[in-house]
Amino acid sequence: MKWIGEKEIEDLALGATLLGSGGGGDPKLGKLMAIKAIRQYGPIPMLDPAELPDDAFIIPTAMMGAPTIMMEKIPNGDEALKSLRMLEKVYGKKAYATMAIECGGINSTLPFTVAAQAGIPIVNADGMGRAFPELHMETFHIHGVNGTPMALHNERGDSCLLKTLDNPMLEYLSRGVAVRFGGVAHIAEYAMSGADVKRVAIPGTLSFCMALGEAIKAAQASKTDPIEAIKEVTSDSIYGEAQILFRGRIVDVKRETAGGFVRGHAYVEGFDEYQGMIFEVQFQNENLIAKIDGRLAAVVPDLVSLLDLETGIPFTTEGLRYGMRVICLGIPSPEIMRSEAALEVWGPRCFGLDCDFVPLQELYATV
Amino acid sequence: MKWIGEKEIEDLALGATLLGSGGGGDPKLGKLMAIKAIRQYGPIPMLDPAELPDDAFIIPTAMMGAPTIMMEKIPNGDEALKSLRMLEKVYGKKAYATMAIECGGINSTLPFTVAAQAGIPIVNADGMGRAFPELHMETFHIHGVNGTPMALHNERGDSCLLKTLDNPMLEYLSRGVAVRFGGVAHIAEYAMSGADVKRVAIPGTLSFCMALGEAIKAAQASKTDPIEAIKEVTSDSIYGEAQILFRGRIVDVKRETAGGFVRGHAYVEGFDEYQGMIFEVQFQNENLIAKIDGRLAAVVPDLVSLLDLETGIPFTTEGLRYGMRVICLGIPSPEIMRSEAALEVWGPRCFGLDCDFVPLQELYATV
Repeated sequence: MKWIGEKEIEDLALGATLLGSGGGGDPKLGKLMAIKAIRQYGPIPMLDPAELPDDAFIIPTAMMGAPTIMMEKIPNGDEALKSLRMLEKVYGKKAYATMAIECGGINSTLPFTVAAQAGIPIVNADGMGRAFPELHMETFHIHGVNGTPMALHNERGDSCLLKTLDNPMLEYLSRGVAVRFGGVAHIAEYAMSGADVKRVAIPGTLSFCMALGEAIKAAQASKTDPIEAIKEVTSDSIYGEAQILFRGRIVDVKRETAGGFVRGHAYVEGFDEYQGMIFEVQFQNENLIAKIDGRLAAVVPDLVSLLDLETGIPFTTEGLRYGMRVICLGIPSPEIMRSEAALEVWGPRCFGLDCDFVPLQELYATV
Repeated sequence: MKWIGEKEIEDLALGATLLGSGGGGDPKLGKLMAIKAIRQYGPIPMLDPAELPDDAFIIPTAMMGAPTIMMEKIPNGDEALKSLRMLEKVYGKKAYATMAIECGGINSTLPFTVAAQAGIPIVNADGMGRAFPELHMETFHIHGVNGTPMALHNERGDSCLLKTLDNPMLEYLSRGVAVRFGGVAHIAEYAMSGADVKRVAIPGTLSFCMALGEAIKAAQASKTDPIEAIKEVTSDSIYGEAQILFRGRIVDVKRETAGGFVRGHAYVEGFDEYQGMIFEVQFQNENLIAKIDGRLAAVVPDLVSLLDLETGIPFTTEGLRYGMRVICLGIPSPEIMRSEAALEVWGPRCFGLDCDFVPLQELYATV
């Protein structure tokens, strides 16, 4: 068990922006909420999956919706707790701990607020190993855990309890509710046993995020290269070593919020050794695919992040603006995320992309 | 109390097509379901509101969605019962009776199936006095009954429990769920006490529908004028006497299903004394406004129905086709449906129509 205080939340939020792969919502809001909760309730215990009793009852909590709207509609702060409580009532038992459904973006920090408010621990694991835009894009789903019953609350006080026959329907239905909630819902779903957590969750991803954030901050403090720090942390993990894909200046961003998602493209004009080349990244909440002069450079589920060239701070797709100088980083996803079953849920074709998954490590050889 | 058997359901379904004002879904499906239930469980007791104990617990049941899709997606038959059971569980008490939320279209007959299956009576009343396309267009809402909690089930086995702060949000949110359910949801909502039923429901509308259907059938059997029969029944009711607006042949029907509704126009070319004139009716599930050569002929909440010229059988907007010979009938709505509070909920402007309500009786003088 580890106690999580303000520093760890700061590190986590920074690392989660990188693992958010441009999406998952700006962790800033979740960070502020978690820090406020820690100041009120004290440090939060974080348990590794192996520390959970097999019969422990775990209820993951999160936000869903369009990241842009998440930042516009500030929550009251107790919406996700209400969803956890709703599921406790449905199951007729109290949660032993909460858990993240994704370790990128706002959903890495949000469950800490719930943990603090409910006085329960958080599990050091998640179901995406990054951020993904849809709710069935979860190792939980891939390995057979039922996402329903699912509870949703909005900041206005409306609520919804869903039961569906399958997890893709849960995604479809809850997305419709989130849209009519005003674009964002605070949710509890994929309730499972401690034994299930050990079987289906990606372990250690929250502490990995914290290590990433800590390394970037240490590099800033010592004025050393943050990219080198990221490479070092990733190479010593279940992820592959981070790889620089491109350096350049953003020359165009196209973005639209529709159907509960933010979809768009960003274009980067290269400099240094990338002079004369164009880097293009396409996103649906998260960065999905990167191409250099039309040639594949990285594709989901591998991670693509755009970082500030000077500070190494990762940008969300929301934050991308004309003129920004960026370094584009690819991070190979862990093996567990590249299995055939996993690629059927979050491979390129699941996002309507007309290409197969090619591991980042193979693409390096040709770029 | 009255016992409802197959004959009464047949009459009700016919009368409900007229009060459906072209919408509310084809009562045929609800009729077949109710008759099947009566054959299985026996006749169903129907209580007048005055017969309810004040502390009786009443749960109205219904279908919501696009009528076209209702006819395409045949239900299993127990979806609305499941929604009633879900609300019973939420409230922690059994329903004393079920009730209709509208007396036009499929929702006039559907609660009889639920009553038979649950072994409870149905209340001889509703909340619309006709059919309307949205869930807050209810005397229940107008007089302060909360529509939530609301239960929704689909034919596939998915379910949803909604709690909202207000009834327009309930309509908006549940409509989104119904759309993602595949266009139709089977619902239970506006649970209320017997005292509330007496205060907020429109009494006697189901038996009025039965009387209408019985009169049309009697006219057919005796080869007398069904329109005269309808006039007689309506003149002896809380509604105004039915009025012939137009006779002619349908020359065009425009219809689209979007956002959970069927919207469109039908155009009728006149004959007899209407020779050379065009009757136009605009609908959103139900007929909303009728014009003759651009001049207002009838407008919501007054009822407009198109009937088969020969048989007096009312058509739903779904059933309208090029070439049909129709008689267009207007029925003045009861006074309770024309109050200022009521017109704020279902007056013409609530449907985006740019006109105020003018009672049918006043329009006769000018047509």
